[in-house]
Amino acid sequence: MGDRRVRIGCEFIYDAAIRTPTVFQVQANDAPRVTVVSEQRSIRPEVGLRGYRDLYDNPCLRVVLPAGTSTFRYQAEVLVPDATEDADTDAPEITPESLPDEVLLYTLPSRYCLPDVLADESWARFGAVPPGYRRVQKIIDHVHEHLRFSYGSSSAQSTAVDVNTSGYGVCRDFAHLAISFCRALNIPARYVFGYLPDLDVQPAAEPMDFAAWMEVWLGDRWWTFDPRNNVRRKGRVVVGRGRDASDVAMATTFGGPRLESMVVHAEEVLP
Amino acid sequence: MGDRRVRIGCEFIYDAAIRTPTVFQVQANDAPRVTVVSEQRSIRPEVGLRGYRDLYDNPCLRVVLPAGTSTFRYQAEVLVPDATEDADTDAPEITPESLPDEVLLYTLPSRYCLPDVLADESWARFGAVPPGYRRVQKIIDHVHEHLRFSYGSSSAQSTAVDVNTSGYGVCRDFAHLAISFCRALNIPARYVFGYLPDLDVQPAAEPMDFAAWMEVWLGDRWWTFDPRNNVRRKGRVVVGRGRDASDVAMATTFGGPRLESMVVHAEEVLP
Amino acid sequence: MGDRRVRIGCEFIYDAAIRTPTVFQVQANDAPRVTVVSEQRSIRPEVGLRGYRDLYDNPCLRVVLPAGTSTFRYQAEVLVPDATEDADTDAPEITPESLPDEVLLYTLPSRYCLPDVLADESWARFGAVPPGYRRVQKIIDHVHEHLRFSYGSSSAQSTAVDVNTSGYGVCRDFAHLAISFCRALNIPARYVFGYLPDLDVQPAAEPMDFAAWMEVWLGDRWWTFDPRNNVRRKGRVVVGRGRDASDVAMATTFGGPRLESMVVHAEEVLP
Amino acid sequence: MGDRRVRIGCEFIYDAAIRTPTVFQVQANDAPRVTVVSEQRSIRPEVGLRGYRDLYDNPCLRVVLPAGTSTFRYQAEVLVPDATEDADTDAPEITPESLPDEVLLYTLPSRYCLPDVLADESWARFGAVPPGYRRVQKIIDHVHEHLRFSYGSSSAQSTAVDVNTSGYGVCRDFAHLAISFCRALNIPARYVFGYLPDLDVQPAAEPMDFAAWMEVWLGDRWWTFDPRNNVRRKGRVVVGRGRDASDVAMATTFGGPRLESMVVHAEEVLP
Repeated sequence: MGDRRVRIGCEFIYDAAIRTPTVFQVQANDAPRVTVVSEQRSIRPEVGLRGYRDLYDNPCLRVVLPAGTSTFRYQAEVLVPDATEDADTDAPEITPESLPDEVLLYTLPSRYCLPDVLADESWARFGAVPPGYRRVQKIIDHVHEHLRFSYGSSSAQSTAVDVNTSGYGVCRDFAHLAISFCRALNIPARYVFGYLPDLDVQPAAEPMDFAAWMEVWLGDRWWTFDPRNNVRRKGRVVVGRGRDASDVAMATTFGGPRLESMVVHAEEVLP
Repeated sequence: MGDRRVRIGCEFIYDAAIRTPTVFQVQANDAPRVTVVSEQRSIRPEVGLRGYRDLYDNPCLRVVLPAGTSTFRYQAEVLVPDATEDADTDAPEITPESLPDEVLLYTLPSRYCLPDVLADESWARFGAVPPGYRRVQKIIDHVHEHLRFSYGSSSAQSTAVDVNTSGYGVCRDFAHLAISFCRALNIPARYVFGYLPDLDVQPAAEPMDFAAWMEVWLGDRWWTFDPRNNVRRKGRVVVGRGRDASDVAMATTFGGPRLESMVVHAEEVLP
Repeated sequence: MGDRRVRIGCEFIYDAAIRTPTVFQVQANDAPRVTVVSEQRSIRPEVGLRGYRDLYDNPCLRVVLPAGTSTFRYQAEVLVPDATEDADTDAPEITPESLPDEVLLYTLPSRYCLPDVLADESWARFGAVPPGYRRVQKIIDHVHEHLRFSYGSSSAQSTAVDVNTSGYGVCRDFAHLAISFCRALNIPARYVFGYLPDLDVQPAAEPMDFAAWMEVWLGDRWWTFDPRNNVRRKGRVVVGRGRDASDVAMATTFGGPRLESMVVHAEEVLP
Repeated sequence: MGDRRVRIGCEFIYDAAIRTPTVFQVQANDAPRVTVVSEQRSIRPEVGLRGYRDLYDNPCLRVVLPAGTSTFRYQAEVLVPDATEDADTDAPEITPESLPDEVLLYTLPSRYCLPDVLADESWARFGAVPPGYRRVQKIIDHVHEHLRFSYGSSSAQSTAVDVNTSGYGVCRDFAHLAISFCRALNIPARYVFGYLPDLDVQPAAEPMDFAAWMEVWLGDRWWTFDPRNNVRRKGRVVVGRGRDASDVAMATTFGGPRLESMVVHAEEVLP
């Protein structure tokens, strides 16, 4: 089984009235099966750019955008396995008693994921399903069916409860809702976002954006689920992981610069 | 300046239908000026009790409550300074550009603290006040005036926005609202809870409960503010710190045991 | 399988010419199967005592001993399983390629453990033995045979190489030597010290001291080995873990106070 | 004050009889005043390359070198300030009592730095010098004078004591000895290595290698000292920090591949 080479990256153009501290979270996270071969990050005009790790150990970049127009670019080439991401339909749910300390957190409510509010619905829908990977898949199936994808249908303040009611959302809302249902059953689930190239996907997806999906703890590890697409894919490149979208923002600006444009890309580099 | 000796502790009695994994967060956190002299933790019937540190480095205890009635007790003796907690009315606000990496987090929205929703009000009320410790004190004064303390007026799902509208809350709501106003101005603020003995307070407070307050980053450190009481006190013993109450729960049960009783105490041990 | 109740503790009496900053590392570390029921730490005269975690996440206490005589005491009651510690003679060695990131460190040389210097001997003695738990046991057996236990035969500066040559050592030297042989074969091994009660040991051991032993990574976890005693025991209570004794000192004094006496105890509390 | 652009990098060529797990520590560490603009890492033949952070939070790369010849390359472009690194000759020494918890470690012995063995000499030479930055500079001056730089004069097992006796060493030995003298006086000191371009240095240095220097805690921060060169420089790019060289190896191989060649470079990119 070989590797495939993918070029990922993004560009943000801002127009700022004043100097604006900003944090970008756009870099590929290290992973056992993803190799970052090269990486460029630049900002024009040229100003200091400094990396650090956040509370969840995601790589972040701090910068102070100067007044006026500035362009931040990130680009990387990565090798990804030429294989669909794995699954194990027999992976068991683990009771809270046996969860590792650092996983417990992902059973609790967070800003956008509200298992407490959605507990009754989650138990009604999934409480009788035999526990394990297949039950999680049923949750994913349900959310994939229940929500209709629609840009602009939700806002930065929409919670899982809001989109469950409205029936519309973007990929982050799909993840928030499915995560909430999982946590209501004491199944640890966390939010993930990153680059998702169209490897072997037909037809190619809409114009590229960052994608959001989720991971669920079953057996002794995290497994990838994607309630927006609900298919196993090749080539996901994780940028950030956290409790929900409030923990992992691709750009956080301290001030009100105008975002003139944002472009995200992720495409195979053919030999 | 001497020390005073304080006995703190709590007791939880649960009645559980089935074995119930539970996390207690009730132990005194280490602090430069607080000395833990002795500590007991017990559970009857006797079962395993194991400590770990959460994401914010707060000490936690994991236990599996057996079916039936069980009683968890924590008690400690601590030495606290015989001095009112410090303040520096000249401590400056720090712009996001200059904040330490690990403090940035506390300028962002979290589950109960919603600076984004409250941004307009915060800027309207406090935007023209000269930055610094005194501005933070004005926020605290406002919240102390605006909210009326009332048990039962808010729930485990009430956000800062909810209590700002209703005008009622308990100590955690006071903290959530003041934290939200601070963060809206890019001032880092975090939630704290712990034991608060009535040292030199007349008259002594209502029957003891855990108390919630907050810390604000000014200059190069965190400073204590208490929007519920709005006075500087002696003898606070911190148990947990986090973004808001969702990060620091005194007890988290995975299942639905009945809480038969909860007692919290914190009183001086006189020689 | 029930638990047994053990009382552990220690007392250090110092005579200091001047105020002397000191770090004590004597507290029971949390463990899945060890429950700390109660804990007292005190210092007379009474001065501030503050906990923190070191680089290896071991609990430490900082204190400034006053001039004159001072007495530090730690005592705890813990529950330990009434079972001999486990072993799995089929547990496999893991190649460096597959070791977790955080375990790699324990294959490298450190101050007292010198696998580079002892590489030839280790390969000559154990290189032909089939890899796995049994090979580690052969290393332990060899060190247990090769070294003769003798107080005062080694110093705080003796390395594994020194004691291998001299043939004498105390428990920490047994551990350093066996760890060095393991690491020379790329088997991760780390140093452990703590309390070791005489549960079901006949005859009871010499007057109690802290004991040093080691842990070896096989399969997917750490396993306990004790080259000094070379028997599986009940009731070990770990205080600290590190690369070797330089990482875990029961007391570190910044200055030259005289240690008047040190007492360590660990005994069962009978019902 | 502007920035200058520096290209740094290295190349290792190995010939391995069998697959050889290897850790490279060659990447620029993030720093407030150093901006990594672009970074490439590659290995031919192409195999997985995965990043992680070690115990000291230094970036590392894991790879398994295939049997045969393989070439690892790292290259980055960084912006460094066009200013000599700062110094404050009035920065005070901090007593152990007041050191931050995480700094205490750097006052203790480690594998190559032996303040315990060198304590008498350190106190004899520097004990009477008034404490502070200037005393540290005196230590640096002494080591710079005392040791003669000579490739091959010391080995991977030479300690500070060894080179103090022999009078010869390479840059790492200079650092180990000066660190040992500092620690003997309870002054925290740690080992640093990285890229050191010849910005404004005349004549340019010998063929480039990684350089080792040190940092000392004075006042409330770490300050750079370089006992090998004993001049304040421009453009240092830190790769790793630790207690001594045993904590930060540019390449660690688990097996015995032959290192065919190693090239390190760091040079200004002129506009």
